[in-house]
Amino acid sequence: MSFSMQTIQQQFKVEYNYAVFFTQHLFDPANTLLKDFFNQYTEQGFQKKALVIVDEGFANFHPSLSSDIRTYFSQSVPQIQLASETIIVPGGEACKNDPVLFESLVNAVDVHGIDRHSFIIAIGGGAVLDLVGYAAAVSHRGIKLIRVPTTVLAQNDSGVGVKNSINFKGKKNFLGTFAPPVAVFNDLTFLRTLDDRDWRGGLAEAIKVALIKDTAFFEWIESHVDALAGRDEEAMAYLIHRCAEMHTDHIAGGDPFEFGSSRPLDFGHWAAHKLEYLTDFQVRHGEAVAIGIALDCVYAAKIGKLPEADLTRILDVLTKLGFDLYHPKLAENDKINLRNGLQEFREHLGGRLTIMLLEKIGKGVEVHELDADIIAQSVDYLEGSKLIHA
Amino acid sequence: MSFSMQTIQQQFKVEYNYAVFFTQHLFDPANTLLKDFFNQYTEQGFQKKALVIVDEGFANFHPSLSSDIRTYFSQSVPQIQLASETIIVPGGEACKNDPVLFESLVNAVDVHGIDRHSFIIAIGGGAVLDLVGYAAAVSHRGIKLIRVPTTVLAQNDSGVGVKNSINFKGKKNFLGTFAPPVAVFNDLTFLRTLDDRDWRGGLAEAIKVALIKDTAFFEWIESHVDALAGRDEEAMAYLIHRCAEMHTDHIAGGDPFEFGSSRPLDFGHWAAHKLEYLTDFQVRHGEAVAIGIALDCVYAAKIGKLPEADLTRILDVLTKLGFDLYHPKLAENDKINLRNGLQEFREHLGGRLTIMLLEKIGKGVEVHELDADIIAQSVDYLEGSKLIHA
Ligand SMILES: NC(=O)c1ccc[n+]([C@@H]2O[C@H](COP(=O)([O-])OP(=O)(O)OC[C@H]3O[C@@H](n4cnc5c(N)ncnc54)[C@H](O)[C@@H]3O)[C@@H](O)[C@H]2O)c1
Ligand SMILES: NC(=O)c1ccc[n+]([C@@H]2O[C@H](COP(=O)([O-])OP(=O)(O)OC[C@H]3O[C@@H](n4cnc5c(N)ncnc54)[C@H](O)[C@@H]3O)[C@@H](O)[C@H]2O)c1
Ligand SMILES: [Zn+2]
Ligand SMILES: [Zn+2]
Repeated sequence: MSFSMQTIQQQFKVEYNYAVFFTQHLFDPANTLLKDFFNQYTEQGFQKKALVIVDEGFANFHPSLSSDIRTYFSQSVPQIQLASETIIVPGGEACKNDPVLFESLVNAVDVHGIDRHSFIIAIGGGAVLDLVGYAAAVSHRGIKLIRVPTTVLAQNDSGVGVKNSINFKGKKNFLGTFAPPVAVFNDLTFLRTLDDRDWRGGLAEAIKVALIKDTAFFEWIESHVDALAGRDEEAMAYLIHRCAEMHTDHIAGGDPFEFGSSRPLDFGHWAAHKLEYLTDFQVRHGEAVAIGIALDCVYAAKIGKLPEADLTRILDVLTKLGFDLYHPKLAENDKINLRNGLQEFREHLGGRLTIMLLEKIGKGVEVHELDADIIAQSVDYLEGSKLIHA
Repeated sequence: MSFSMQTIQQQFKVEYNYAVFFTQHLFDPANTLLKDFFNQYTEQGFQKKALVIVDEGFANFHPSLSSDIRTYFSQSVPQIQLASETIIVPGGEACKNDPVLFESLVNAVDVHGIDRHSFIIAIGGGAVLDLVGYAAAVSHRGIKLIRVPTTVLAQNDSGVGVKNSINFKGKKNFLGTFAPPVAVFNDLTFLRTLDDRDWRGGLAEAIKVALIKDTAFFEWIESHVDALAGRDEEAMAYLIHRCAEMHTDHIAGGDPFEFGSSRPLDFGHWAAHKLEYLTDFQVRHGEAVAIGIALDCVYAAKIGKLPEADLTRILDVLTKLGFDLYHPKLAENDKINLRNGLQEFREHLGGRLTIMLLEKIGKGVEVHELDADIIAQSVDYLEGSKLIHA
């Protein structure tokens, strides 16, 4: 017997929409932004549930947060019924390493009867948003997620994007999904309690997008370098908005769920990822990115791609903001670790190495190989320039 | 200080494409379907990896499967490098209950260096495809998945769709994602070793889609009821193709990732889910769906929606195919369990109850409430009709 059935060709598109709001004092009853969002977003006449999950590092500075949120919802958002408990999770990278924490969140979804049409409201830094985002994305095949990022990095980068993740047996971001939120609320006042390292760290992502895409934005950063270093909120507000906008534009304009292998926003990231590992995440993401940018810019200048004058301006901005441009782990083991880092990055992308280098400030260009010796020379250069800038 | 930044409105679409192929003897070197797929799908000049994961219940009947696959790939698909081991996982619902099994698959992804541009080839019944699909979807935020369904239900329904899942602490399908495969290969000859219950079970999903959408298909089933009950492969080939086509059309035409709350393909499923639970999955999915369809059709006839003549034809087809239309668990506890089932289904959908009922063969209609007394009467009716049909 032999008969053949025609192949079925399946094809469809899935549309995603979400707003990134900018505000101050989000849970102040006088602020109607959240109320307005729910009025517009939810169907009339059906009460939905919401579970609030907060970063402990943030909650510690806001002892009345949970009760403020309850007051806000009971007064202004009657169509949302908050779960009986507000969940507090430890902040920082550690939370992404702990499978028990992930399970406890999934369990809370079950216990509180949170379904696909309920909301999870995640408040915290990039690590907590990644963990909660992952738990929300896989519970019931996806619960509606509202993000309230509380660090600079989360407000201008991770929290406005479409990815989540946790670590698996020490492998960074090994488990995760692409899962857009239904809304993001960036509250500038939430950044006041950040320590200087985390205030600074998020600036690296803004410098990154400026360098590869927007000369004018880089010049704006250059001219506001003192304000930014001095924790001026108005300057930070502009920087976050512009960076978030470039980030969301990039996602929408290209390949939102990264099916291809080109990842221009990973500029400066291959060495950064390796450095985070080598230092057991003592060097934080933004700090590592600053060093990664510096390294790749020195490299680009050494191979004659990037003008020396541009290199100087870039290293100056990074230095004035307070970033270290060198870390001893970069040179360890005769730079062999960096060579591994490149290999891991290649595997991460799936085969072909694609690295973004700068041609000039505001314009990136992709290359498919890096020379190990010139990387080593670039590390030496940074080690030397450290002495000069210090 | 007060300044306001404009809201960023993010919007994008993600496109998905995949083919469902129908074939026989997929791994026979003379069959070029798989080879042709990879030639067309993969970039020239880059070797990609693939990890094969097989349902033990299927593998037991095909002792040479792993070596056949290796021969096929080494001869015909040089651009794919198979992982050094073929992974065998226990088949059936139990595999979705075991978190250690899920972890071992994620671990295998790591150990074998399977990245976002590698493939996982999952071969098995709906349960194994759900488990492997979930592991593939969350590892590295999504590895390319090829499904080779080996049961009727998986070939005409679960394996051609976009969902995956595992159970969490006894909660069915609690963890999962929407993650389309990159291709599906339905091999008719793989169904030969199925036991009768699994051969029959998959027919219920075909009857389901026929009843709500396609009178002609239902009539075709009616006129092939003996062939189908007698395991005629040509009849089964047609049934699977038409059912798979209706399933993929439904996904593409509507709301692929089920953001809304209408789920017409859940016709017959609210009671089915409850019955699976109440019997500890001794009643299999397709068997439970057959009973669920019968129950909702009796209900629809009782409230005057469905003509009696149509009801008779539907119950006749189900009975002739060998389905039981009644299970004692339906009546247990004064039908209170079914009432709970309805409540759970409401929660599953997120608030508003939406149940598909039949108006006539080939046409479904959604209702938003069911009457508990009439459900109870419908159960009684099925209990009685069991005596008649037996
Ligand atoms: N999903 C993505 O697309 C994406 C992109 C980039 C980075 N990330 C992830 O983001 C994480 C880093 O995030 P991060 O830089 O926001 O740091 P973080 O989340 O690790 O937070 C740093 C510390 O600040 C505390 N904190 C948070 N908000 C605070 C506040 N307002 N005041 C005082 N303390 C506060 C936290 O408790 C933590 O101890 C990494 O895990 C990284 O992998 C994700
Ligand atoms: N993802 C979806 O959209 C979706 C839809 C419907 C059902 N499902 C899921 O599918 C599962 C049921 O799947 P199923 O009906 O395919 O049953 P199954 O996967 O439970 O398999 C039944 C038995 O058949 C064995 N088997 C598989 N192929 C065989 C073959 N060719 N020969 C002999 N034995 C074989 C298995 O080892 C198992 O013991 C449930 O877990 C259900 O939740 C998923
Ligand atoms: Zn980054
Ligand atoms: Zn079903």
